[in-house]
Amino acid sequence: MTAVLLLSCPDQKGLVARISKYIAEHGGNIIDLDEHVDSDEKLFAIRVAWEMENFSIPANDLESTIFKLTEEINATWKLSFLEERTRIAVFVSKYDHCLQEILWRHKLGEYNAEISVIISNHSDLQQLAEHYSIPFHMFPIDNENRSNQEKLEIELLEKFNIDAIILARYMQILSEDFVNKFHNRIINIHHSFLPAFKGGNPYKQAYDRGVKIIGATSHFVTENLDEGPIIEQDIIRISHKDSIDDLKRKGRDLERLVLARALHHYLQHRVLIMGKKTIIFE
Amino acid sequence: MTAVLLLSCPDQKGLVARISKYIAEHGGNIIDLDEHVDSDEKLFAIRVAWEMENFSIPANDLESTIFKLTEEINATWKLSFLEERTRIAVFVSKYDHCLQEILWRHKLGEYNAEISVIISNHSDLQQLAEHYSIPFHMFPIDNENRSNQEKLEIELLEKFNIDAIILARYMQILSEDFVNKFHNRIINIHHSFLPAFKGGNPYKQAYDRGVKIIGATSHFVTENLDEGPIIEQDIIRISHKDSIDDLKRKGRDLERLVLARALHHYLQHRVLIMGKKTIIFE
Amino acid sequence: MTAVLLLSCPDQKGLVARISKYIAEHGGNIIDLDEHVDSDEKLFAIRVAWEMENFSIPANDLESTIFKLTEEINATWKLSFLEERTRIAVFVSKYDHCLQEILWRHKLGEYNAEISVIISNHSDLQQLAEHYSIPFHMFPIDNENRSNQEKLEIELLEKFNIDAIILARYMQILSEDFVNKFHNRIINIHHSFLPAFKGGNPYKQAYDRGVKIIGATSHFVTENLDEGPIIEQDIIRISHKDSIDDLKRKGRDLERLVLARALHHYLQHRVLIMGKKTIIFE
Amino acid sequence: MTAVLLLSCPDQKGLVARISKYIAEHGGNIIDLDEHVDSDEKLFAIRVAWEMENFSIPANDLESTIFKLTEEINATWKLSFLEERTRIAVFVSKYDHCLQEILWRHKLGEYNAEISVIISNHSDLQQLAEHYSIPFHMFPIDNENRSNQEKLEIELLEKFNIDAIILARYMQILSEDFVNKFHNRIINIHHSFLPAFKGGNPYKQAYDRGVKIIGATSHFVTENLDEGPIIEQDIIRISHKDSIDDLKRKGRDLERLVLARALHHYLQHRVLIMGKKTIIFE
Repeated sequence: MTAVLLLSCPDQKGLVARISKYIAEHGGNIIDLDEHVDSDEKLFAIRVAWEMENFSIPANDLESTIFKLTEEINATWKLSFLEERTRIAVFVSKYDHCLQEILWRHKLGEYNAEISVIISNHSDLQQLAEHYSIPFHMFPIDNENRSNQEKLEIELLEKFNIDAIILARYMQILSEDFVNKFHNRIINIHHSFLPAFKGGNPYKQAYDRGVKIIGATSHFVTENLDEGPIIEQDIIRISHKDSIDDLKRKGRDLERLVLARALHHYLQHRVLIMGKKTIIFE
Repeated sequence: MTAVLLLSCPDQKGLVARISKYIAEHGGNIIDLDEHVDSDEKLFAIRVAWEMENFSIPANDLESTIFKLTEEINATWKLSFLEERTRIAVFVSKYDHCLQEILWRHKLGEYNAEISVIISNHSDLQQLAEHYSIPFHMFPIDNENRSNQEKLEIELLEKFNIDAIILARYMQILSEDFVNKFHNRIINIHHSFLPAFKGGNPYKQAYDRGVKIIGATSHFVTENLDEGPIIEQDIIRISHKDSIDDLKRKGRDLERLVLARALHHYLQHRVLIMGKKTIIFE
Repeated sequence: MTAVLLLSCPDQKGLVARISKYIAEHGGNIIDLDEHVDSDEKLFAIRVAWEMENFSIPANDLESTIFKLTEEINATWKLSFLEERTRIAVFVSKYDHCLQEILWRHKLGEYNAEISVIISNHSDLQQLAEHYSIPFHMFPIDNENRSNQEKLEIELLEKFNIDAIILARYMQILSEDFVNKFHNRIINIHHSFLPAFKGGNPYKQAYDRGVKIIGATSHFVTENLDEGPIIEQDIIRISHKDSIDDLKRKGRDLERLVLARALHHYLQHRVLIMGKKTIIFE
Repeated sequence: MTAVLLLSCPDQKGLVARISKYIAEHGGNIIDLDEHVDSDEKLFAIRVAWEMENFSIPANDLESTIFKLTEEINATWKLSFLEERTRIAVFVSKYDHCLQEILWRHKLGEYNAEISVIISNHSDLQQLAEHYSIPFHMFPIDNENRSNQEKLEIELLEKFNIDAIILARYMQILSEDFVNKFHNRIINIHHSFLPAFKGGNPYKQAYDRGVKIIGATSHFVTENLDEGPIIEQDIIRISHKDSIDDLKRKGRDLERLVLARALHHYLQHRVLIMGKKTIIFE
């Protein structure tokens, strides 16, 4: 078994030594360590992974033991085990490309996750969900039932014990309550190179502006639309020959890959949120 | 000698045939033809280049002859000869990288242009100009003298018979009058992936937003800051490890290359402005 | 209906005018024209597309009429109609990613093609073929039956009236006879940046060499393995942290996209083979 | 002052803890630590940087103290101080672009280095060297004097106490003796995407093969031409429209940037050679 600690705290001397010594003294073999110091903010961040074989503290007690260490250095932290699969829910509407990509990669074994449930406001992708044998639940949304439907969704997510939510081109805006309920655990794909072309119809916006490159952005969802910490971005070159439909077609490939990569980082516990930004321990 | 016609007009049947037949019937050999139809706007655009050797109309009369053709189809057009060097003025402030890049490429023979004069509001780059033996004129700008200095600059530009102006990290905003005087003939480099991070300090803005990719944009200058038709853009990947200074360093390489490429397209008469966008006949 | 003519011939004066005049005189509206002159080889190449509505020559007679024109200029050419779907066969072995990508895009309507049959030397992808309701035929290959199986495959391909063959990670080498039978109509995806890492196990080769970038290449199949005309290539950055399995995982994304794009160009009749190279009329 | 230790050794438990504890116990503040375990080769590699302020071992004694630690773990290692400038010699022939790039960046302060001397087999770039006030020495090379000239070059390099040699499009092949003399300290730029197009005239080779992407590679020089450990690579997209001269022009930009980035990594002591590959601690 492999433990992964993601931790950030105010910077001070000797933090790497302290943490690595703690692991070594209990018999853990560090297999990966990467750290970063944000000099502006005087913050320290680290991702360290070690083998639990022969580790003198049992996995079950690890969290409470680490707590002592982290309390002393005033850290925010998250402990995970690579062998424990993250339970995710995928929210979709009508577009299938992002969902298809995630399901296909998951089946190939790329993701250390269990896709517990697919939630949609439409029925279009039910068949795809069934093809991969994933429970599919539909919650149609309109202006009147939104709040109530979200309550039912939350109940369902809790029933499935969901760790993280992936918005795979889900075309509804989640309420602030919902977002706060899953604080820093909702990942979205936006079909533009943020912060350019926030909001609706980014391909149309890009087409009208005459940009020579379009992009896609995967980010955590916060209460401010399209402003959450960015996990991954990528771009593709376009030209005057491309119609809006061409942009959508080319953009689909970006959306799929950018979301897939963001998810890959997240599921390997390589993403640490620091304020309005992320650190990706690649 | 090689003539290049850049032309746009309302779309109608037979335009390619009409134009190419006109050239062929006068004995011209088309060496490059590329066209584009904007279906949304019902507009036709073409770039056609032909050898003037054995062409039955002399170069001097060509403009007036083509005028008849273009009037019939209600076209906007520009005729150039590849062998006639575009006369450009480069505006700079203190940063040398874009100027250096242009001068070096020009010396290598990449640009079909004459760099007639370098204008700056500071003296820092005088020595670089002298090293390449280009006239250097300084017009210090403050809030009171701006309008007057621009008048003097325009006089100088007219004296040098300038065709186009390159803003190579020129840190002043040109007045609307100045911009209109050189309508669609001023090319700027903006150090962001427009329309993201318009205005001042884009690297700081990018750093604060936590983007994973930064960009640079070369565009024509219009009266609305950073909103002119885009000629060329490119990007580079960054990470949390990059400080603002790293962004500036990496961005410098982008700025240089993006401006250099935009200029290359422009000087080969491959850039056609259509409304708020450009067509690049690559 | 839209006709597309792909043509190459020895360069001479007036070719564009001649071809566009021919189209205009018969009432065709050119909607896209792109040409290229290879100065080294003195060859001319053109792709021209025009609307057949109101064209004075019926589609059925077009081929024979154009024949006269092309004979005069000693051209190699191919006439197609965008509305006539190319009939393709996809050859696969065990890897599903390229096939999945093609089937998914086809279903989305990206490809102007009919996927008539899937042929494999293994049964692994039968279910995927059935999910998309495409006939699946298995021809197991070993050293003794190869020649005979290819004969049966050819019979099947002829029965389905196949225009082009896509090798979507098909792990067998086709015989020279087979390749010649479908001369310039077999498209392969090779999982390296050709000509680097020809032959078997390119990811292992790339890993051992310690390259910082890996690639994929889609090309026409010729009798010389991995040496046919290249249609499309792309790359992805890797680092020392990537294992061979990481290379395979990242490479899968490249293979899918590069093959998909090559196929897109091909099905829009944008690919012209000129000697050992291709011209892509983008 | 900041010390940087680059170290590799057979993998074993507790190495990170041991090294970081050693630094912490002597009062050093680790400001950057990155490590890598090559599971195939069972090798451990680390780059760790720490502040020497308040470090209980003086800089002068550090090397001998670390020796004890590294002997125990059977390590290959190199200790540097960021404030001590690496002394480099640049070898050139006639092309100026790589030299120009290095000199310009150096002047901007990007490189933690002293460019002590420029050596060339031609006089073409003498003026450029003088413009930046760097000593320039010419050693014309022909088949007969090669061995003798190399001896004189080595004398000069020793006189200047050179740490590393940059071949900035130096068009001569160095002898095995010369290469061994500066083992793992000679950096070359090759104008292709290695291992494709080794040897002479790679742009011609690329043109003839009809690739859609060209590249450049910076690598350490070993006795086998173009086969040394790769430090950095990058690529640019080309098309059938590009002549060999276009390839050279576009390639120049790649060569400059790839060499510049490789040098940047090297001078920050981020490059560790492990067998035939490099680890770049970015």
